[in-house]
Amino acid sequence: MAGTDRRRKGEAEDFCKNGPVIVLVEPQLGENIGMVARAMLNFGLMELRLVNPREGWSRDKAIKASSGATIVLDRAQIFESTAEAIADLEQVYATTARPRDLVKPMLSARHAAATYTPLIRQGIKCGVLFGKESKGLSNDDVALADAILHLPLNPAFASLNLAQAVLLIGYEWFCANSEVPDKVTPLGKGRPASKQDLMGFFEQLESELDASGFLRVPDKRPSMVRNIRSLFTRANLTFQEVSTLRGIISFLVHKKSFRK
Amino acid sequence: MAGTDRRRKGEAEDFCKNGPVIVLVEPQLGENIGMVARAMLNFGLMELRLVNPREGWSRDKAIKASSGATIVLDRAQIFESTAEAIADLEQVYATTARPRDLVKPMLSARHAAATYTPLIRQGIKCGVLFGKESKGLSNDDVALADAILHLPLNPAFASLNLAQAVLLIGYEWFCANSEVPDKVTPLGKGRPASKQDLMGFFEQLESELDASGFLRVPDKRPSMVRNIRSLFTRANLTFQEVSTLRGIISFLVHKKSFRK
Repeated sequence: MAGTDRRRKGEAEDFCKNGPVIVLVEPQLGENIGMVARAMLNFGLMELRLVNPREGWSRDKAIKASSGATIVLDRAQIFESTAEAIADLEQVYATTARPRDLVKPMLSARHAAATYTPLIRQGIKCGVLFGKESKGLSNDDVALADAILHLPLNPAFASLNLAQAVLLIGYEWFCANSEVPDKVTPLGKGRPASKQDLMGFFEQLESELDASGFLRVPDKRPSMVRNIRSLFTRANLTFQEVSTLRGIISFLVHKKSFRK
Repeated sequence: MAGTDRRRKGEAEDFCKNGPVIVLVEPQLGENIGMVARAMLNFGLMELRLVNPREGWSRDKAIKASSGATIVLDRAQIFESTAEAIADLEQVYATTARPRDLVKPMLSARHAAATYTPLIRQGIKCGVLFGKESKGLSNDDVALADAILHLPLNPAFASLNLAQAVLLIGYEWFCANSEVPDKVTPLGKGRPASKQDLMGFFEQLESELDASGFLRVPDKRPSMVRNIRSLFTRANLTFQEVSTLRGIISFLVHKKSFRK
């Protein structure tokens, strides 16, 4: 899934203003911090905060694991407590899969991203807390959050590593900020066939099928023609593809002369 | 984000029937195959197919990297060509971020999962092709697919590793198969406060605020009372929380006697 286009860097810079701050509470390994930075940049998130990283700030390991997402690591800030790391934020989510004894709303990551993206665009600062690799967030940290973010996962195998959890949250935020068309068919330099092009092909094909005897049963001919026309219409042919098909018909009809 | 519940294994087994087959074409590293297995099992996908894995089938490295998702590796099948690996499938998607010269529909992963999940439930077999780590899918492999799956990504940093790409595709399929509530607030053993409970608290609070002089300006009293009631109503208090708040008021009012 590679395909970075460095000319489009500006678009990501614009986007990151609409994403949440990512707060890692007591991350244990520099490699994980680097992989989190990579996952963040995949979705244009640029603001990383670290609360008491265990290895201090092992930049070399983090940089190596970030696969080039150094811009996120360069901007990362370190705090001594979760309370300090979230002090300027106005909406904070905790990520935790374990049920806690706290009465706290649980929002699906998709719903949270859809709901809060318009608020972030209005200037509300939002952040997402991720706990340490081994134990997740403490109850004290969860208590500081406005809500818990929920990621649907196989209940029989729900262990995500830190970077994967950040990846999925970032993905939801990016989708909420992007105009993602459900379906497009890029034509490159081509253009769709006109209905006239298509009709020319149908007439050639049906004329040859009449001549060959394929459409020899008069009662069945109308429905067979409709089905064949439907099949080729469904393919959304380009002008070039119609030309290719017309060539195929001609060559198939005249094949004997070529075999001589 | 840990929280595996092994008692719920059956649910995932049921689910996997509704997910696509994951086909890795010429994967280069056993570790990556293991991490793919883990990402698959996170979302209940159980059917992994490998086309010409470069290291043959380096089970040890794959198992170590799978973090326990050996059930997926145990069931994995190996094929010599992409055509053989997809022979029994009826709908095949290619994952590629690079624009190709082929005229091929591009579907967002979310749209594809939403559209094809009902068909898979009806018994249609569907698969997703992933190319080798270094170069992605060949044009010949993409040509065999019905459509290209598109994952929205930061255009300035669009490099996903193999397991991350599988993770995001699996996530979309799992979401399309799951009833994910937008928002719930689990109350544990508690129950919500009744309006009578809440009104008792309001009356206690307002009576003490009258006595203390906080509500001393008659013109402002009605709107102040409404704002205070709104604030506490918005919190969706539990019965226990209302009791706690009533205790807090009592202690604050009588604090002087405790300080003696």
